[in-house]
Amino acid sequence: MSTPSELALVPFVSVANMMRLVHHIGLEQLLVELAGEVEADFRRWPKFDKTPRVASHSAVGVIELMPTSDGETYGFKYVNGHPKNTHEGLQTVTAFGLLAEVSTGYPLLLSEMTLLTALRTAATSSMAAKWLAPKGAQVMALIGNGAQSEFQALAFRAVCGISEVRLYDIDPAATKKCAANLAKTGLRVVPCTSAESAIEGAQIITTCTADKQYATILTDNMVGAGVHLNAIGGDCPGKTELAPGILSRASVFVEYPEQTRVEGEIQQMPADFPVTELWKVITGQAAGRKSGAEVTLFDGVGFAIEDFAALRYVLAKMQGTGLYDELDMIADPDDPRDLFGMLMRAN
Amino acid sequence: MSTPSELALVPFVSVANMMRLVHHIGLEQLLVELAGEVEADFRRWPKFDKTPRVASHSAVGVIELMPTSDGETYGFKYVNGHPKNTHEGLQTVTAFGLLAEVSTGYPLLLSEMTLLTALRTAATSSMAAKWLAPKGAQVMALIGNGAQSEFQALAFRAVCGISEVRLYDIDPAATKKCAANLAKTGLRVVPCTSAESAIEGAQIITTCTADKQYATILTDNMVGAGVHLNAIGGDCPGKTELAPGILSRASVFVEYPEQTRVEGEIQQMPADFPVTELWKVITGQAAGRKSGAEVTLFDGVGFAIEDFAALRYVLAKMQGTGLYDELDMIADPDDPRDLFGMLMRAN
Repeated sequence: MSTPSELALVPFVSVANMMRLVHHIGLEQLLVELAGEVEADFRRWPKFDKTPRVASHSAVGVIELMPTSDGETYGFKYVNGHPKNTHEGLQTVTAFGLLAEVSTGYPLLLSEMTLLTALRTAATSSMAAKWLAPKGAQVMALIGNGAQSEFQALAFRAVCGISEVRLYDIDPAATKKCAANLAKTGLRVVPCTSAESAIEGAQIITTCTADKQYATILTDNMVGAGVHLNAIGGDCPGKTELAPGILSRASVFVEYPEQTRVEGEIQQMPADFPVTELWKVITGQAAGRKSGAEVTLFDGVGFAIEDFAALRYVLAKMQGTGLYDELDMIADPDDPRDLFGMLMRAN
Repeated sequence: MSTPSELALVPFVSVANMMRLVHHIGLEQLLVELAGEVEADFRRWPKFDKTPRVASHSAVGVIELMPTSDGETYGFKYVNGHPKNTHEGLQTVTAFGLLAEVSTGYPLLLSEMTLLTALRTAATSSMAAKWLAPKGAQVMALIGNGAQSEFQALAFRAVCGISEVRLYDIDPAATKKCAANLAKTGLRVVPCTSAESAIEGAQIITTCTADKQYATILTDNMVGAGVHLNAIGGDCPGKTELAPGILSRASVFVEYPEQTRVEGEIQQMPADFPVTELWKVITGQAAGRKSGAEVTLFDGVGFAIEDFAALRYVLAKMQGTGLYDELDMIADPDDPRDLFGMLMRAN
């Protein structure tokens, strides 16, 4: 059998190669560049085909497909969310994604996205905070110290210039792990034993807990004036982190309202609860933070355009590095109508 | 860096390995077994999560995601449809698919599906005809002699027992290719120069043309009593093959009405045009063919459950063959909360 033609081969970035690519670029450099790419795609928001993700729910978790297209390139991500996985030694979230050429439908890139999702989520959060957090914010509380936490901390330092993170998790082992991982990064790391002490003096509060239930990580009286909230753990129906009272007095910014009203913190609020789309702030069509005393909230649930930007970035950066394999994934007979002949000649 | 753990590895069936698997099983044997698997999943139709496919249309084609789940296993297919690709030396349809475990969200199988889609489409068509075609049908007209045609011919022989195929395509080169490919299969092959001559004496008429436009491959007066129509080329909005008059006097059987009313031949008919779901015929809840003189039509557009059955089949049959690779696609840190630590230790 002859070797597959070039058209049959799809570049594939494995987990091992994604890790190599991160170190090749440098983690904080990558987070800054990725925040820039996500922002660039938010700037051209109206160009994209947008749809709420396609979710398949079960009693223990969810599997989702997140497609989008800018008219030239199509992308989608497969991602699961199974909070109970951690107790079985598995990841809560695993993911992979694909880019394809709209004009032919042929894939351009297949990539692991478990790591890449953590990177793009942190990049997006920090990009939103750059537009919404009070000027000169130096201290971030980080509530929930799981798999996403260190990426958030480093992105906020690299993109927003914070110098201190105050950690809290209901599981002290998670806080210990996060503190150890951040020890040599140059950030001042303060492990705390309660959410109340973690938010002391913080201008930015990031909540990234994972339990699938209506939890109240922050109560109304815990959130003072002039704070930016980065709530990323509330991301599916039945999963929220903030008391409704906080939402009532905050200015709430979202990615794609049709999805966030179902999945985000605002699922607790009426269907006409006022929100501002982040892309409109970035393009100057809506106001961001209006005063130093305002409470701003980025109700981030993760949207397909962020994954699209991340895959675009990987495709561009991997060129010339050799950090990918080629998968024989597309049948490509010499005569495109002769799929059968190709099969028979392979015998 | 240590090698990835077993959990991080996803079995991948490449195009080359899919071809080897087909020959390992034997093509007609595979088509018979696959028709049985598709029928088995039609029998348990109510168990599945069903949704019309998620399509991203452009001026030149469509890219679709087709997810489903039986509660234990989740599956989806990525598939494009670009009729103009053939003129550029590319496949009209390319595809790949995935199975995952509902309880964890972890992938079980990634597979090429360009070949597998051709196989499952032929298997499904022949399975439907087994239930709907007149008893003892021996002759099939095959209008449209592209990439799908030979698979249809062989499936109808293996599953329905036809002995003669009569070929027609507007491009004589396609007919010549199809006839040459079928020459040694034992089928009587009759190349024809018009659709009218192709359907002479045929009890089954298969239409599988690919142009994205309202075409009339069969006019009303061409279709006589007692014929089974297997219309598989009308499969997206704006793409049909049959004159509406044929639909009016045929008993029409479909996969998933919500999808077929948008994509199938019946997009030409009112929204309340009566159709019968094929799974109800198979489970005895609805009548199939009621008389020898009836015109039956399987308005096949391709549904996610067929791909699910095909992926299930491949996963079962590949065991012990070695005909797959293992992809390092899922990040799997020793401590599932320590994705960051895994990344840092890889440096």
